[in-house]
Amino acid sequence: MKKSEAKKSAKPKLRLGLPKGSLQDATIEKMAKAGFNVQVSSRSYVPYVDDEELEIRLIRAQEISRYVEHGYLDAGITGHDWIVENGSKVHEVGEFIFSKISRQPTRWVLAVPEESGIQSVKDLQGKRIATEVVNLTQRWLRKNGVKAEVEFSWGATEVKAHELVDAIVEVTETGSSLRANKLRIVETLLTSTPRLIANHASWKDGWKRKKIETLSLLLRGALEAEAKVGLKMNVPRAGLAKLLAELPALRNPTISQLSHPEWVAVETIIDEKIVREIIPQLKAAGAEGIIEYPLNKVVY
Amino acid sequence: MKKSEAKKSAKPKLRLGLPKGSLQDATIEKMAKAGFNVQVSSRSYVPYVDDEELEIRLIRAQEISRYVEHGYLDAGITGHDWIVENGSKVHEVGEFIFSKISRQPTRWVLAVPEESGIQSVKDLQGKRIATEVVNLTQRWLRKNGVKAEVEFSWGATEVKAHELVDAIVEVTETGSSLRANKLRIVETLLTSTPRLIANHASWKDGWKRKKIETLSLLLRGALEAEAKVGLKMNVPRAGLAKLLAELPALRNPTISQLSHPEWVAVETIIDEKIVREIIPQLKAAGAEGIIEYPLNKVVY
Amino acid sequence: MKKSEAKKSAKPKLRLGLPKGSLQDATIEKMAKAGFNVQVSSRSYVPYVDDEELEIRLIRAQEISRYVEHGYLDAGITGHDWIVENGSKVHEVGEFIFSKISRQPTRWVLAVPEESGIQSVKDLQGKRIATEVVNLTQRWLRKNGVKAEVEFSWGATEVKAHELVDAIVEVTETGSSLRANKLRIVETLLTSTPRLIANHASWKDGWKRKKIETLSLLLRGALEAEAKVGLKMNVPRAGLAKLLAELPALRNPTISQLSHPEWVAVETIIDEKIVREIIPQLKAAGAEGIIEYPLNKVVY
Amino acid sequence: MKKSEAKKSAKPKLRLGLPKGSLQDATIEKMAKAGFNVQVSSRSYVPYVDDEELEIRLIRAQEISRYVEHGYLDAGITGHDWIVENGSKVHEVGEFIFSKISRQPTRWVLAVPEESGIQSVKDLQGKRIATEVVNLTQRWLRKNGVKAEVEFSWGATEVKAHELVDAIVEVTETGSSLRANKLRIVETLLTSTPRLIANHASWKDGWKRKKIETLSLLLRGALEAEAKVGLKMNVPRAGLAKLLAELPALRNPTISQLSHPEWVAVETIIDEKIVREIIPQLKAAGAEGIIEYPLNKVVY
Amino acid sequence: MKKSEAKKSAKPKLRLGLPKGSLQDATIEKMAKAGFNVQVSSRSYVPYVDDEELEIRLIRAQEISRYVEHGYLDAGITGHDWIVENGSKVHEVGEFIFSKISRQPTRWVLAVPEESGIQSVKDLQGKRIATEVVNLTQRWLRKNGVKAEVEFSWGATEVKAHELVDAIVEVTETGSSLRANKLRIVETLLTSTPRLIANHASWKDGWKRKKIETLSLLLRGALEAEAKVGLKMNVPRAGLAKLLAELPALRNPTISQLSHPEWVAVETIIDEKIVREIIPQLKAAGAEGIIEYPLNKVVY
Amino acid sequence: MKKSEAKKSAKPKLRLGLPKGSLQDATIEKMAKAGFNVQVSSRSYVPYVDDEELEIRLIRAQEISRYVEHGYLDAGITGHDWIVENGSKVHEVGEFIFSKISRQPTRWVLAVPEESGIQSVKDLQGKRIATEVVNLTQRWLRKNGVKAEVEFSWGATEVKAHELVDAIVEVTETGSSLRANKLRIVETLLTSTPRLIANHASWKDGWKRKKIETLSLLLRGALEAEAKVGLKMNVPRAGLAKLLAELPALRNPTISQLSHPEWVAVETIIDEKIVREIIPQLKAAGAEGIIEYPLNKVVY
Repeated sequence: MKKSEAKKSAKPKLRLGLPKGSLQDATIEKMAKAGFNVQVSSRSYVPYVDDEELEIRLIRAQEISRYVEHGYLDAGITGHDWIVENGSKVHEVGEFIFSKISRQPTRWVLAVPEESGIQSVKDLQGKRIATEVVNLTQRWLRKNGVKAEVEFSWGATEVKAHELVDAIVEVTETGSSLRANKLRIVETLLTSTPRLIANHASWKDGWKRKKIETLSLLLRGALEAEAKVGLKMNVPRAGLAKLLAELPALRNPTISQLSHPEWVAVETIIDEKIVREIIPQLKAAGAEGIIEYPLNKVVY
Repeated sequence: MKKSEAKKSAKPKLRLGLPKGSLQDATIEKMAKAGFNVQVSSRSYVPYVDDEELEIRLIRAQEISRYVEHGYLDAGITGHDWIVENGSKVHEVGEFIFSKISRQPTRWVLAVPEESGIQSVKDLQGKRIATEVVNLTQRWLRKNGVKAEVEFSWGATEVKAHELVDAIVEVTETGSSLRANKLRIVETLLTSTPRLIANHASWKDGWKRKKIETLSLLLRGALEAEAKVGLKMNVPRAGLAKLLAELPALRNPTISQLSHPEWVAVETIIDEKIVREIIPQLKAAGAEGIIEYPLNKVVY
Repeated sequence: MKKSEAKKSAKPKLRLGLPKGSLQDATIEKMAKAGFNVQVSSRSYVPYVDDEELEIRLIRAQEISRYVEHGYLDAGITGHDWIVENGSKVHEVGEFIFSKISRQPTRWVLAVPEESGIQSVKDLQGKRIATEVVNLTQRWLRKNGVKAEVEFSWGATEVKAHELVDAIVEVTETGSSLRANKLRIVETLLTSTPRLIANHASWKDGWKRKKIETLSLLLRGALEAEAKVGLKMNVPRAGLAKLLAELPALRNPTISQLSHPEWVAVETIIDEKIVREIIPQLKAAGAEGIIEYPLNKVVY
Repeated sequence: MKKSEAKKSAKPKLRLGLPKGSLQDATIEKMAKAGFNVQVSSRSYVPYVDDEELEIRLIRAQEISRYVEHGYLDAGITGHDWIVENGSKVHEVGEFIFSKISRQPTRWVLAVPEESGIQSVKDLQGKRIATEVVNLTQRWLRKNGVKAEVEFSWGATEVKAHELVDAIVEVTETGSSLRANKLRIVETLLTSTPRLIANHASWKDGWKRKKIETLSLLLRGALEAEAKVGLKMNVPRAGLAKLLAELPALRNPTISQLSHPEWVAVETIIDEKIVREIIPQLKAAGAEGIIEYPLNKVVY
Repeated sequence: MKKSEAKKSAKPKLRLGLPKGSLQDATIEKMAKAGFNVQVSSRSYVPYVDDEELEIRLIRAQEISRYVEHGYLDAGITGHDWIVENGSKVHEVGEFIFSKISRQPTRWVLAVPEESGIQSVKDLQGKRIATEVVNLTQRWLRKNGVKAEVEFSWGATEVKAHELVDAIVEVTETGSSLRANKLRIVETLLTSTPRLIANHASWKDGWKRKKIETLSLLLRGALEAEAKVGLKMNVPRAGLAKLLAELPALRNPTISQLSHPEWVAVETIIDEKIVREIIPQLKAAGAEGIIEYPLNKVVY
Repeated sequence: MKKSEAKKSAKPKLRLGLPKGSLQDATIEKMAKAGFNVQVSSRSYVPYVDDEELEIRLIRAQEISRYVEHGYLDAGITGHDWIVENGSKVHEVGEFIFSKISRQPTRWVLAVPEESGIQSVKDLQGKRIATEVVNLTQRWLRKNGVKAEVEFSWGATEVKAHELVDAIVEVTETGSSLRANKLRIVETLLTSTPRLIANHASWKDGWKRKKIETLSLLLRGALEAEAKVGLKMNVPRAGLAKLLAELPALRNPTISQLSHPEWVAVETIIDEKIVREIIPQLKAAGAEGIIEYPLNKVVY
């Protein structure tokens, strides 16, 4: 392997772990938006990426922080929850929100059957809890001075709450899956978001750190852009000042003169959610030819 | 339920029916383009929408107008055909075209086997007709002074025309499915497009009406944008007047000075279909650096 | 058929062959980006296209050049490889790259088992080769003065190399499928890209040629746009000259004055791949409010 | 068509309707077990059957009885529920159970939300009910002296019970889908099983009646066989009488002498469900070499 | 490889080619019925078979006879059509029918559009024909003294008949796919069934020939059994002779005495198709407790 | 819950855990062959079973032994491997082979990259091993006096062996998946088969033990029958003794007299694998009308 390492040193590479499994498609889509096209082949465990300075590995979200800590990976994208569960010593570069629709973090919660008598962590004394995050749960119980048996669940944890154990600690985004299983959320142990993490040594290496920071910048720019749109409109010059005063959402617009001397073009970047409210207001204020266009990246 | 109603009055909501089934995906996609992200869960009959002022219900297109009329829904999106079939008394707020490709309304037509002797509505006297729109068909026969038996078809109506009945009344967009079944279109009973409808009482409620109008405005803006694109190009100042005179499609462009004093940038919004014809003409007229970009919404 | 031909002569049509099978979806997607929406129906062998001047036929990529040559089709999109294999006399209008990710041509290569003694074309003397491109392979052997038996392979050619034949000539993009089958690439016979081709007579017909050229122009504009994005940013007027000098990638930008007299807006079209590198540089150079937006077409 | 009718009279045919849709696969499987292999092609509305005396039509279960009554079909397989709903005058030849696992009829039930105050048919006075079986429901209400509004539901009826209507009349086998929707069954309107029905005129035609009866006999034989198995074992002659006395389930067995004079072979046909209980008893009674084998048909 | 070859000679193996593709599943199912369980893995091109004396290769049906002829395979299962098309010199061991439902051979037919003027092979003079079986078609034309151009079709041949060529030679089982494409069958060139074929040298090898013959015997036994069933019934001794005389289909039955002295058990093997007719007759003749059971193999 | 418990005590039930996931379908199929039809609904976590004395739970194979030990389940079907991994104290009722084709147990093996220097357990000293069976691996290392780091693998373990860890302990049936990943098997830690296990208390309960034993007996009978078939043939009385002497596989046959005095019917149960060899021998020995039929259960 000497030879191939020699070759590597000639052309530095950053080895990046992406989460295999349920987060995989979302992560690859975000990477593509950031400008890095990753192609997974069923024939090879090394995905293709159109950047010679990157080397991608697909690894379970649960394990990424462990392999970043050990140095097998320079950096990785994984949930805050699994970094905590594994107790991994890694550098957290940035935090991201992946869910385009809810734009919410996930939560690990204590859940019990709707009709259970358990109302708080204190009621868990002497009880049995099933969960995929055994360490996190045990630490939380200790912190609350409660003794309970925590057993590792290999999956389908929600079903167990009804007869196999007294309570579960399970992950949820909107709570709808728990409700559908007739479970009640008692407490939240941890909220979690995707993180870009780095091995401490890699973070000290100048080239690697710069590469990781660029990745972070572009990823953030791409995620930022998911929630924003470009908005352009024509406004009579006479009404411009009033319009801008009344609509502070039109932050920092570009104003350009149109061929017609009485009209100007106003252009800005705006939260997609605000568009719903502002378009009727803009029309009312005399704006015309309003167009909204999509963005790939927004970097302030 | 008192309490939850109290809570509702504190935060007004508009209950909106969207068509479940074949139009469902298209409708949800259009709603997203309008800025309202709807997420359907297999576990719940109440879809999630990222607007706290909306409450979505997925209901068969055939039934939406009935539930809007009764007031269970404030508003809904459904076909004009089913409003007519049900004879529902509702307020029609707007008409939309959903099909990005054909951009055509659907039609309910009288169809018979290619070799049938039936050539017009008059030839239906004493015959048997299968259809999903029994009321609409009976009314049309009455209007034409024809007596025929109309029976409700639960589906696969096209196949019946060959041996079970004498004729069918069936919906079609391009007629290709009828032709594939060797059926001939005799007459058109009704052309239909998707409509946004409102309950009469909801339409009189100030807050609800404004919400419905905003929805209509944004939906129209999103659909408008599907057929349009942004077009930008650099043009020598000297040729600008001639180019604009010859290409009236470049309606109302924004002209800006480029750093080079002899060149200007021209930008406009244009029908995507016209782009196919105009780009060669623009090149011939000396335009350079022509770019086309997508739009999310266009509101005049 | 007389009547329909008469009707046709009134409204000229271009008959265009698109590749059925593995390239079909990619081709239809590129056609849509060029502005021609094609809809394939399982009921009809004639796809719908929203341009009355076009008539689409889906035909195997292997056969398109043959039917263009014979005049059944006016034009077609097919691989350079099959034009060569068929020895078709057609006019090549343009060359395109369809793969968004690798942006590489495909290659027909001679491949043998990893442990085979065959190291060059010369070692094929007296051997047996399986391939889908029998003519191309035989011509290449002749050119190299080698005599070998070439047999037509109906598919799954890779598997045959291990025991049924001595070598194969197979198509590959990245070589990963060959490596997964433990095959070694010995030589490349031909590199191939998709081509727009025309029948010689159609190319001489004024109307048809113009239609084909427009199609080529729009297709090229759409493919060009896949690799490019629009980039806009605000730059302090003072730093503008330095920024443009240091970043030659910002080719030919549009500069416009912002309302604030010290700032200008800079806008340009740029390779998406360069964005990854240039955004950190732009930020370092004082640019703010950098946004990247997608393009549909780019025509120089 | 004269000629083909002449040909038909030469070779009589029975036109049989099978239910298209959810019951289709089960029905075709049962027909195959009865000895009639039906092959449905996506290209033709006339399925192939390997019996020249049969002609198959796939028609919605809801409509079969109507077309049998009108004489378009000689016979058909459909649910008792739809015969009642349509009020069709047809001859019921036989009743079958199709569900191999539950072996239960389906039921049309009145269902309401778990927390609804409706406890019996009487509580429906003045209420609104959604259902696919409007006639059946109205008749049942009349019979109970209750006035309520019944509206036709195009599907997804279960969801409507929670807010669009007060109650629903819906079909269920085990009730689990209703329970999953948090609905409570109030009363049962009708239990229904698949039926073989005949047009009255066809039933009077000697050849057709014989054909229908044969079909009924073979179908019954096949369905009977689904619940039965063959059982064979060796028993010491000395214990035979006791064994037969104690196990009356071994109804009417065939006893044959084995080569060994002290042993006999006992063979019988038995319900598969009884096998679960009887095998341990047989072993206890000294039986050896017990084998169970599958049956295709059982005709008493 | 010396060592593994030494091992092979110690344990003789028969290398058998099975058709990859459309016939693959049917062939593997028949092999299983014959007693040889083949398991195809997506990871390996050598399928597993539970017989150490067999080595399976999956190869396109079109190519099997070529590789049997060359000796790469000892034996193979392929269609008679491809043996003829390839002109392969192989030993035909046996002929089989694989289609359980139609139990018909496939046919290669000359087909033309319904409205074409071509009525016989003679009308093909000077015409152009597309087909997958170029050699077979050319030979047939020569035999009929007709000169026509035959071109290789890579697939979707049916569609070509309408505008790309004058006629096609295509394979069909029931003709329904041709009819659905509005094509008319003019003549049949060849009927074809699956064959077990052997390499001439392998057929002379004692061990291999015996292995192939056993395979043929078991395969035939399994296919025979698909069309047959076992039938058992109880008959009053008094009526036995009459029943057997009247029902010659009950060929060569086994008669055994039942415990009741007046009754005998009659058992026989019979065509499944006859069961449909004979069961009513048996009942009429006094038979009771008729059961039909499935068979795995029937070897006379 | 008092009431429902009272009801339960009236009707005893056995709560049985079946493995959810990869073994689920195979287990449900075997249960059906044993006579217990289980139906899994996506709406309920309690599957339906057609035996009122059983209550089924689907639980991960990894967890079943834990819940049997704790008494939440009376009995369960799970792999020997997970009983050992969990160190569960349960009663092992029986061992079964589920794989119809290979009929082999699975193995947990130590695997390393083909080119690794690790040749035996001793070479693991100081190394890092990934596995799903951490306890089992640690115990095995201890037994061999080797110290190594064992980390839990959440899946896709095979891929890790190449760069993340030094070795893996992974499950395999035929080794083909390991070979496809270019891994070499070093040693086998454990061979494992499915087991029926019981909670110790349930095993002491008379009714439950009898129910479990019946289940075991029927399951064994069904699995036994998968590998066996019934064989019947006619033999000339004169050759019978010789045939039976030469073919000891025809163990313990039933001989019955045929109507023809010179012939007898011979019937026996035999391994399906032997049929392949014995049928040619039987024909050679004069047997005629050989038929093979399938069996559902074989209980000696």
